[in-house]
Amino acid sequence: MSARLTIALDAMGGDNAPTAVVRGANMALRRNPNLEFVFYGRESDVTPQLNRLKRLKKVARVVHTDDVVDSTERASVALRSGRKSSMRLAINAVKDGEADACVSAGNTGALMAMAKFVLKTVPGIDRPAMASFFPTLRGESVMLDLGANVACDANNLVEFTVMGNAFARSVLGLEAPTYGLLNVGSEEQKGHEELREAAALLRGVELPGHFYGFVEGDDIATGTTDVVVTDGFSGNIALKTAEGTVKLYTEFLRRTFRSSPLAQLGYLLAKPAMRKLRKRVDPRRYNGAVLLGLNGIAVKSHGGSDALGFAHAVSLAVDLARHKFIDTIRTDIDKLDRRTSAPAQAAAV
Amino acid sequence: MSARLTIALDAMGGDNAPTAVVRGANMALRRNPNLEFVFYGRESDVTPQLNRLKRLKKVARVVHTDDVVDSTERASVALRSGRKSSMRLAINAVKDGEADACVSAGNTGALMAMAKFVLKTVPGIDRPAMASFFPTLRGESVMLDLGANVACDANNLVEFTVMGNAFARSVLGLEAPTYGLLNVGSEEQKGHEELREAAALLRGVELPGHFYGFVEGDDIATGTTDVVVTDGFSGNIALKTAEGTVKLYTEFLRRTFRSSPLAQLGYLLAKPAMRKLRKRVDPRRYNGAVLLGLNGIAVKSHGGSDALGFAHAVSLAVDLARHKFIDTIRTDIDKLDRRTSAPAQAAAV
Repeated sequence: MSARLTIALDAMGGDNAPTAVVRGANMALRRNPNLEFVFYGRESDVTPQLNRLKRLKKVARVVHTDDVVDSTERASVALRSGRKSSMRLAINAVKDGEADACVSAGNTGALMAMAKFVLKTVPGIDRPAMASFFPTLRGESVMLDLGANVACDANNLVEFTVMGNAFARSVLGLEAPTYGLLNVGSEEQKGHEELREAAALLRGVELPGHFYGFVEGDDIATGTTDVVVTDGFSGNIALKTAEGTVKLYTEFLRRTFRSSPLAQLGYLLAKPAMRKLRKRVDPRRYNGAVLLGLNGIAVKSHGGSDALGFAHAVSLAVDLARHKFIDTIRTDIDKLDRRTSAPAQAAAV
Repeated sequence: MSARLTIALDAMGGDNAPTAVVRGANMALRRNPNLEFVFYGRESDVTPQLNRLKRLKKVARVVHTDDVVDSTERASVALRSGRKSSMRLAINAVKDGEADACVSAGNTGALMAMAKFVLKTVPGIDRPAMASFFPTLRGESVMLDLGANVACDANNLVEFTVMGNAFARSVLGLEAPTYGLLNVGSEEQKGHEELREAAALLRGVELPGHFYGFVEGDDIATGTTDVVVTDGFSGNIALKTAEGTVKLYTEFLRRTFRSSPLAQLGYLLAKPAMRKLRKRVDPRRYNGAVLLGLNGIAVKSHGGSDALGFAHAVSLAVDLARHKFIDTIRTDIDKLDRRTSAPAQAAAV
């Protein structure tokens, strides 16, 4: 039996808070019975909802705060004035060792800023990155950065690779993951300077698995590599483009089945199978982006997600905590540091 | 009846040349009877194929050349040593007024370099951009740049907007297109500096239609704006990510229909409707990227495309030629120039 874990929840974050948060926690509890929850938020809003869910109530407690970070608030403002906010208290719980991970569906920028400020980056990591996994033809892959860093240099990309590699090993359970850099062509001379530089650096770094080189946009869904590394701008564009394309295809499919009585009948027959397909491409199943590179686990749920989506974000937090993911990153980054900083140290002597 | 147009074809470009080129031209001719073709390439390869297609043969001639640009050749090398290549001769035909447009499925980098060198950019346009249209929930939109320029400044993005706007009006037939800049958020302070600067410039430019501001990756498929403007790196990533996602969904759909006898039966009933869906998301239908901003029409067909795909690329070239697309760009860029360069001129006096 796995050890009991405590998850801190920002009960007030997201469009459907606190309902989606409370019900999502309840769904996550059904899948992972060894969980405890601390809900941070308005007691008068949260407790009545908890009272309806007996099993959840037994393993949950509510820490009251009136303060909530607004979804439109600037990160810098939230950081200064949101010290008593539900989001901040959930992050603090991780820092203070009261929780093994925290989850919020609130303001992304504020969560990143607060998590970075409170939890601090792992020594040797310059900037944390947002990562998430997604379906491919071969199974599942992880991509990062998804938007934490709009501009990245070669060293940032190398650090992201180390973190993505650790994610693939711990969360996806791959012993020797393949990893690649997202680019506009697979040839060595393609793309931005920092990509070429990162590729050269990665060829000299020893990580478990195999460095594939450059991958392109269509390789993401093909699953050419288990880890796709990119700057936060391109990663965010790729992620949202894929989401939009799935929505478009689903709508076209719906229209197709409605286009003739025969097609409608066909749909009825194929319905149980189609339900499985819908589940497979359901973005809620891939909900939950994690801010990698911090001394603690902070997971961002999509702001618009419902209980099911939130439950998946909680499960991701549980996976990360259970696999001692941060220890893996610390060990790998240490190796990296020794390699790349060795000549500089020699020169300093 | 529309005027007769001559299309110059690089008969040797692409993985399936010259078969896909000859047959593609034949398919395009069925849709547009007022076409003439000049095939540039090895006569011994092209003529036997033409001889089998009586109707095409009547409106086609072959200009022999032995020289072919290799698909792996560097653009700079192709530019120097490929002066007698089938690709170069097809572009020259446009320059010399012998053809109204040219189409090639060959080496993208070489085509861009040659087309830019031979046709030159429209005065007032700093860099040409690759554009293509794609399906959305609302119909069709155009996106640019798709890979011609890996890095762009604010002025490049403004010029791309002018060109994309002209494309939407002439090829998509929209009188007042909406246009937006691809970014990682819709808020004004988001993204790279050059995007914020371009947005500020676009608010002061008078173009037909409406400047929406920033759009995100999922807005591409939603069709939030008719024109999506981005740098060549992000545009290429978005385009290929969408292509990969469509392939993934199609494969999941195929597996779904094979997953049970009932689903298989359902598929049989829905088959005619499904065929329409497949057609709708068929990438061949959206084949053909055009290099905008040159004094002549050069269309790039996907290297791996078959006859149907190539026919669509030819149709795009025909549309652009028929709508006097380049004149529209010239007029709009002139207006833009007067606006933005006025203060500078005043200062010079």
